[in-house]
Amino acid sequence: LSTPGSVPQVLVTDLGERGLIARIRARLPASSPDVVVGIGDDAAVVRRDRNALQVLTTDALLDGVHFDRRFCSLADAGYKAMAVNVSDIAAMGGEPRLALLSLQLPAGLSVEDVDTLVDGVAAMAAEARVTVVGGNVTRTPGPLAIDVTLVGSVRPRRCLTRGGARAGDDLYVSGALGAGAAGLAWLRRHGHTPLSRPDDDAVAECVDRYRRPSPRARLGRLLGRSRSVRACMDLSDGLADAVRQVAEACGTGARIEAGAIPVHPGARAFLSDIGADPVAAALSGGDDYELLFALPPKRTRHLHALAGQARGLTLTRIGRLTREAELVLVHDDRVQSLPDGFAHF
Amino acid sequence: LSTPGSVPQVLVTDLGERGLIARIRARLPASSPDVVVGIGDDAAVVRRDRNALQVLTTDALLDGVHFDRRFCSLADAGYKAMAVNVSDIAAMGGEPRLALLSLQLPAGLSVEDVDTLVDGVAAMAAEARVTVVGGNVTRTPGPLAIDVTLVGSVRPRRCLTRGGARAGDDLYVSGALGAGAAGLAWLRRHGHTPLSRPDDDAVAECVDRYRRPSPRARLGRLLGRSRSVRACMDLSDGLADAVRQVAEACGTGARIEAGAIPVHPGARAFLSDIGADPVAAALSGGDDYELLFALPPKRTRHLHALAGQARGLTLTRIGRLTREAELVLVHDDRVQSLPDGFAHF
Repeated sequence: LSTPGSVPQVLVTDLGERGLIARIRARLPASSPDVVVGIGDDAAVVRRDRNALQVLTTDALLDGVHFDRRFCSLADAGYKAMAVNVSDIAAMGGEPRLALLSLQLPAGLSVEDVDTLVDGVAAMAAEARVTVVGGNVTRTPGPLAIDVTLVGSVRPRRCLTRGGARAGDDLYVSGALGAGAAGLAWLRRHGHTPLSRPDDDAVAECVDRYRRPSPRARLGRLLGRSRSVRACMDLSDGLADAVRQVAEACGTGARIEAGAIPVHPGARAFLSDIGADPVAAALSGGDDYELLFALPPKRTRHLHALAGQARGLTLTRIGRLTREAELVLVHDDRVQSLPDGFAHF
Repeated sequence: LSTPGSVPQVLVTDLGERGLIARIRARLPASSPDVVVGIGDDAAVVRRDRNALQVLTTDALLDGVHFDRRFCSLADAGYKAMAVNVSDIAAMGGEPRLALLSLQLPAGLSVEDVDTLVDGVAAMAAEARVTVVGGNVTRTPGPLAIDVTLVGSVRPRRCLTRGGARAGDDLYVSGALGAGAAGLAWLRRHGHTPLSRPDDDAVAECVDRYRRPSPRARLGRLLGRSRSVRACMDLSDGLADAVRQVAEACGTGARIEAGAIPVHPGARAFLSDIGADPVAAALSGGDDYELLFALPPKRTRHLHALAGQARGLTLTRIGRLTREAELVLVHDDRVQSLPDGFAHF
C-alpha cells in the first residue's frame, strides 16, 4: 500500500527483461518494410539495398562521463546517443537506416526513466528515418550506459573517408563551431536542472546544441553525391583533432587560418564573458557535430552548388592541406602549431 | 623510476583513445576482402552478399554481472562476449560475418588486460570467421563492459525464427544441457583463479563450457538449410525459457519429457554430489549455448540426415508442441508446470 501523496515508482528490476523489452518496443517508431524480423527474436533480420555498401558504427554514452543528469534529461541523453552515431554515418556520405540499442540500466532506475530515455532515442531515430530493429538490456552496478550501433548504406562512388584528399585541397567546415563547448560551459556554471536555459537566444542555442546535437545527415549525403569532395570527417572531438586525422589519413600537413574559423555567436559572447577563448573552444572543444571536408580549389564552383543545396547551413573555407607535414594555425600572421583536440578518454 | 622487481603497469588512461584503438586493431585478425573501410574512420564500410538477408544482434557482458574475474580470465570474457552473439546468429540459421566491439574500460585497467580481452574476442572471431570492422572505446567509472554487435547473413528461405512451428511438431535440443550451470556452480565453490579446473574430466568440460561456450554455428546453418525445421532458438536463458518463448511465438503449448532431457554427464555428477537437481539445472540454468528447434514428426527422416551432418553433436527429441496452451513437464508420469527460465536481469 502506498502512502497518500507518494507515487510508488516501478523500477526496471521489478519489470524484468522481457517486460522491459516489450515496453521499449512499444515506444519506438513502427517497423519499416525492410525489416523481416524485428525486436523480440534471437536476432533481427533485414532486407538490404542492392548496389549499396553498408556503413556501420557504434558509440556509447555513459552517465557521468558523456552526459550529466544534473542538467541533461534522459531524453536528451537518448537523443544524443542516436545523434552522435548519425553524425558518423553522415561523415561517410552514408544514409542511416537501422539501429540496435544496447542499454545498461542501474537497478535504481525507474521504468519512467527508461521511457524518457527511449523517447529521446525515438525522436532522433524518427528525424533520421532510422528503425530500431533490436538491442539488448542488462542491469549494471555502474552508470547508465546507452550504446547505439547504427547501420547505413552508401553507393560505392559516394563513400567518403578521412583519406583521399591531396596537398593543396581546401578545407571547409559546416555551420558554426564552439557551440558544444560553450553550451557545456554554461550548463556547468548555471545548469541546475535539465530545463535550465539561458535568456540570451544565441547562448541558448549553444545549450540546445550541446544537449541535442543536430548531426549533418543531409549535408553528408550531398557531399557524398558531389564528385568533388575528397575527404570528410565529423567534428565530434573538435576541429583540431579532425584536421589532424584528415591530414594524417591523406599523408599531408594542414594550414588553418584562425580568423576564418566560423565561431558560433553565442559561443563568442558567452566564452568571452567568462574569460575563455572562443577560437580555442572551436578548435579543441568537443561536441560540435559539424563536418570537415576537403575540395580541390579548381572545384570551388561545386562548393557554391553544395552551399545552395545546404538549406541555409553555411560552408566556410578555413584553410588547406599542405605538402609540408606540419599542422599549423595562422593567427594574425603568427604561425603556431595546431593545438590538440578534445580527449574523450 | 620503478622499484626493482616491480613492473610498472601501463594503464588504459595512459595510452589514450587513439593509442588504445591502434593497439586493439593490431591484435585482431586481418581484414577480409568484404571490408572497404575498416577500423579507424568515422564508420566501417563493407560489401554485402547479394540475395541474402542480413541478421543483426547485440549482447553485452559486464564484469560482476555476466562474468567473475575471480575465476574467469579477461580472455574468457572476451571469447564469451563474441560467442553469445554467434549463438544468436546461429539460432536464426545465419552465418556470422562482421562485428563491432564496444568497450567500456575502467581507468585502473592495464593495457595488458585489454590485450588479453581482445585476444579472447579475436580467438572466437577467428573460429566463427568473423571480422571485427569497428567499434568504440570509452572509459567508465563502473564495471568493465564488452558490448559486441554481430552482423551475419542468411538466405531468405533459410531464415529461422522462434515462430513458424505448429502443434504436433517435435521439439529437439542439440548437445547436453546443464553444463553451463554446473560449471558456474563448481567455479563458485572451488574456482579461486581463472586457471582453477576440476580433476574429473566430465566436470572439467562443464567448467570449460561455462568459461568458453561453443556456439552451434554449424548446426544453425544446417538447420536453416533444412526445409523441415520450422522454429529455432538458442538456450542462453535455459531450456524452460526457450520452450516458453518458442511456444508463445508459435501460438501453441508444449509438453516436455523430463526423462528425455539430455543432461551433461559432468553436470549430473557434480550437481548430484552437491545435492542439486541436474534436470532443474538443465531446465532453468543459463549459459548452455545449444539450440532448441521444432520439426514435424513426418520429417523425422530429415532429422536423421541432420544428425549425420552434425559431426558427433547429438540431437535429442525432448517433447512436442501441443494444441493445449499449457506448458507442461512430464516427470515419471507426474505432470507439472514447466518451471521458469534463467532470469538475466
